[in-house]
Amino acid sequence: MRIRYKSWATKYIEENPQLFINSYYNTAEMESKLNKYQKLEMEIGCGKGQFIAKKAIQNPDTLFIAIEKVPSIIVLATQKIIEQKIKNVLFFCGDVNKFQENKIFKNKIDKIYINFSDPWPKKRHAKRRLTAPYFLEIYSFCLKENGYLQQKTDNDSLFDYSIVNIGNSNHFNLEVVHINLHQTELENIQTEYEKKFSQKGFTIKYILAKKMEKDKK
Amino acid sequence: MRIRYKSWATKYIEENPQLFINSYYNTAEMESKLNKYQKLEMEIGCGKGQFIAKKAIQNPDTLFIAIEKVPSIIVLATQKIIEQKIKNVLFFCGDVNKFQENKIFKNKIDKIYINFSDPWPKKRHAKRRLTAPYFLEIYSFCLKENGYLQQKTDNDSLFDYSIVNIGNSNHFNLEVVHINLHQTELENIQTEYEKKFSQKGFTIKYILAKKMEKDKK
Repeated sequence: MRIRYKSWATKYIEENPQLFINSYYNTAEMESKLNKYQKLEMEIGCGKGQFIAKKAIQNPDTLFIAIEKVPSIIVLATQKIIEQKIKNVLFFCGDVNKFQENKIFKNKIDKIYINFSDPWPKKRHAKRRLTAPYFLEIYSFCLKENGYLQQKTDNDSLFDYSIVNIGNSNHFNLEVVHINLHQTELENIQTEYEKKFSQKGFTIKYILAKKMEKDKK
Repeated sequence: MRIRYKSWATKYIEENPQLFINSYYNTAEMESKLNKYQKLEMEIGCGKGQFIAKKAIQNPDTLFIAIEKVPSIIVLATQKIIEQKIKNVLFFCGDVNKFQENKIFKNKIDKIYINFSDPWPKKRHAKRRLTAPYFLEIYSFCLKENGYLQQKTDNDSLFDYSIVNIGNSNHFNLEVVHINLHQTELENIQTEYEKKFSQKGFTIKYILAKKMEKDKK
């Protein structure tokens, strides 16, 4: 997502530390927070936060973690959460591999969402795609056994890439695949991007994978 | 494929036994025939035979087996092979599970093609789809280690179904997936059906899977 640089973003994050995992919480505080909720879900690349805000309102018993590496973007999501007085969202500003360093989340997450992530079309950038094997390892580390990984994309090549990696992964079983999600009756919260691009005629592709109870190996 | 019933089909098959694995060959004869070729490939549901005829002409060192269960259809493919004087195609008229009873083909096939097979859209018919787990077992039985299974379809639901089954199979690794084959530069022999339906605007979906060296189990 391209967005105008905001000089105030870093300061804003510093002034709202209670919303950011990075800057505020120690392990004990985080555990105490987690214990108040029945489920823990996470979005990788939350963008402006419309998806996570809707999910949070619909599921008050779930704590949502919204990860986004660009400060100028994450603050838009943060503002949305504050304005709508949503209490069950926390943010992490940074790469998901940095998030993983919080060992407290090992095998804790019920579901991970990847919505319309950057397709990185050039082959030499394939490792940056959020379904590269390196990232699948991280998701598997964070997810509970039988936890879910869900991806939506309008990009054919990213879908092709994801299917091969997830399908061949020793950590995941494919549960549901739809190459035209909007033609199904599956319950679906549309992101800003999804509405815009499906209106332009792009079909939305959907993958739901389940972390295996025991790795196939 | 729907086609007019041909009263002469069964008789035609009987009169051309050298072209049909079912009716003519014993194990010794078949082994001697196989040994003349470097590779062995097979199409499940050959229809009118345009695909297999082109493949056979392009690959004279490969023996092709064309399976089709409807006599009134397979004779059209057989006539094509005879007219074009193609020598490296054999036919099997029947279900692929019957073909499997020819133990001689165990771990012998280099590649299996499934082109635009019946999507059997009703859920209660799912077992009839050619990528149901039962059929994947048969293909794995017939394929060499590192042999390939290739599917093309224009049907979204069949593609979704295939991806989940093949991706989760203990016998196969997904190698390549394209949800819009004609947008890639992959070499591709189009079937009659493929030309007709891609002209109507249907995208052609493609799956290439490789039989694992050792089952993941």
